[in-house]
Amino acid sequence: MFQQALGAAQGAISAFLAEELARFGGDRVAEGMRYATDGGKRLRGFLALETAGLFDVPPGQALFAAGAVECLHAYSLVHDDLPCMDDDDLRRGRPTVHVKWDEATAVLVGDALQTFAFELLADPRAGDDAQRVALVASLARASGAQGMVLGQAQDIAAETAAAPLTLAQITELQGNKTGRLIEWPAEAGAILGRADPAPLRAYARAIGLAFQIADDILDVEGDAATAGKALQKDAEAGKATFVSLLGLAGAKARAAELVAEAEAALSPYGKRAHNLAALARYIIDRDK
Amino acid sequence: MFQQALGAAQGAISAFLAEELARFGGDRVAEGMRYATDGGKRLRGFLALETAGLFDVPPGQALFAAGAVECLHAYSLVHDDLPCMDDDDLRRGRPTVHVKWDEATAVLVGDALQTFAFELLADPRAGDDAQRVALVASLARASGAQGMVLGQAQDIAAETAAAPLTLAQITELQGNKTGRLIEWPAEAGAILGRADPAPLRAYARAIGLAFQIADDILDVEGDAATAGKALQKDAEAGKATFVSLLGLAGAKARAAELVAEAEAALSPYGKRAHNLAALARYIIDRDK
Repeated sequence: MFQQALGAAQGAISAFLAEELARFGGDRVAEGMRYATDGGKRLRGFLALETAGLFDVPPGQALFAAGAVECLHAYSLVHDDLPCMDDDDLRRGRPTVHVKWDEATAVLVGDALQTFAFELLADPRAGDDAQRVALVASLARASGAQGMVLGQAQDIAAETAAAPLTLAQITELQGNKTGRLIEWPAEAGAILGRADPAPLRAYARAIGLAFQIADDILDVEGDAATAGKALQKDAEAGKATFVSLLGLAGAKARAAELVAEAEAALSPYGKRAHNLAALARYIIDRDK
Repeated sequence: MFQQALGAAQGAISAFLAEELARFGGDRVAEGMRYATDGGKRLRGFLALETAGLFDVPPGQALFAAGAVECLHAYSLVHDDLPCMDDDDLRRGRPTVHVKWDEATAVLVGDALQTFAFELLADPRAGDDAQRVALVASLARASGAQGMVLGQAQDIAAETAAAPLTLAQITELQGNKTGRLIEWPAEAGAILGRADPAPLRAYARAIGLAFQIADDILDVEGDAATAGKALQKDAEAGKATFVSLLGLAGAKARAAELVAEAEAALSPYGKRAHNLAALARYIIDRDK
């Protein structure tokens, strides 16, 4: 049932983005925007749709928040893959944007995808004025220099740090780099549902950290072909990871603990939250 | 009187940005954001303040739109200066961000400045909900893949085009790359003043084009030390410019014509618009 719901959300988000991105022309930046937002697990978008669904927000409305967070996430991947950043040639099993086109195009595609995320949130179909401005403000805080971008800067600084990061430092870094953009769609669902965001924030914070621990486990145990990207890059680079700090068994135990925390945070919503509970479990069981 | 007003606006915008950017820490991305938004002519911000002033919008409110457009402009310069784009080492007489720090930092500084522009527009002090969401939507359209970024992509494509651009093509390219972000603050003034944006849009469209023609003239006639950047790059690259297409005298005549058009568009505002009229003349008379 969870897999069905996730598959349906993936289809709906892809159709939504294809339709909304059709406003852009046939130039290479527009093509790159469509390419970079095609595929992926859509976990962030799914979170927006599922949390909004708890409060009976119409899916057609919540798709704007779901599409926006997927565009924001895609922009961060396109820029993160650049030679001057992580220098990755492969993403979702396909050439990265700067490999398929060139670096200038990748810079512009990322830039335009960020802009488009905010354009989607400002769309009259995304909510009333107060909701849309709350979505814009919260996404800006989550993704900017106190959120995701700060995490990326901390990640770069860690590469040249004298000592490997501590557990507290890597938790903070990953909370910024990855966690904030997993928390945002849960907050967006609460904004759209005019509901208290606290339980959903606690849920999302737990799964965000579990997600990153699972990524580190996958980096050690996973299969590059299935993952669609290069693995063991962190270990080779001598970077501290949750696995290097906690050990493989310790990391798995911590991830399981976080999933239990996430499930507990969902208690106010009862059975309506079964897909969100299943998502928490899926996050540590996935193979890519 | 115009020079005094411009100087006062520059001071107010710089103080505003220093105060608002203080929320970010001491990491290199935060430092880069402050560095990249320090200095410059502030013409876009001045336009926001002056057009909002026509309708008695409090300056403290209009500063959010003024600061946002300066951050958006600064982001575009930081990314445009990257080695994979225009590869410029010098900006406003100082090392560009990727020279002072590194390319990864420059990518992130630009990314975070774009985010921050939208964060400023979503700030409750920037207007009521409807105004803020209108500011976000219009800035996203002006700066995204149908606006500024499209112009940048057209500029890159022109470099490898078989034939130099025609006058119509370069007018469209510059209208996207530069014009849209000069039109936006005038539109923002109208949004904040709950006024008809049409006359201010016509004014801004004319000065935006005049600005670019003046830039091309400056590229041929100007002094690199005064301009604070490398000159004659376009001519050396064999790019079509307004000067190469119209001749120096023709370009000057066209710029003067546009200034007259801009002044005519201001007629609904009478004497209140004297600084905007003076700005139109300043744009073609400046030496940097």
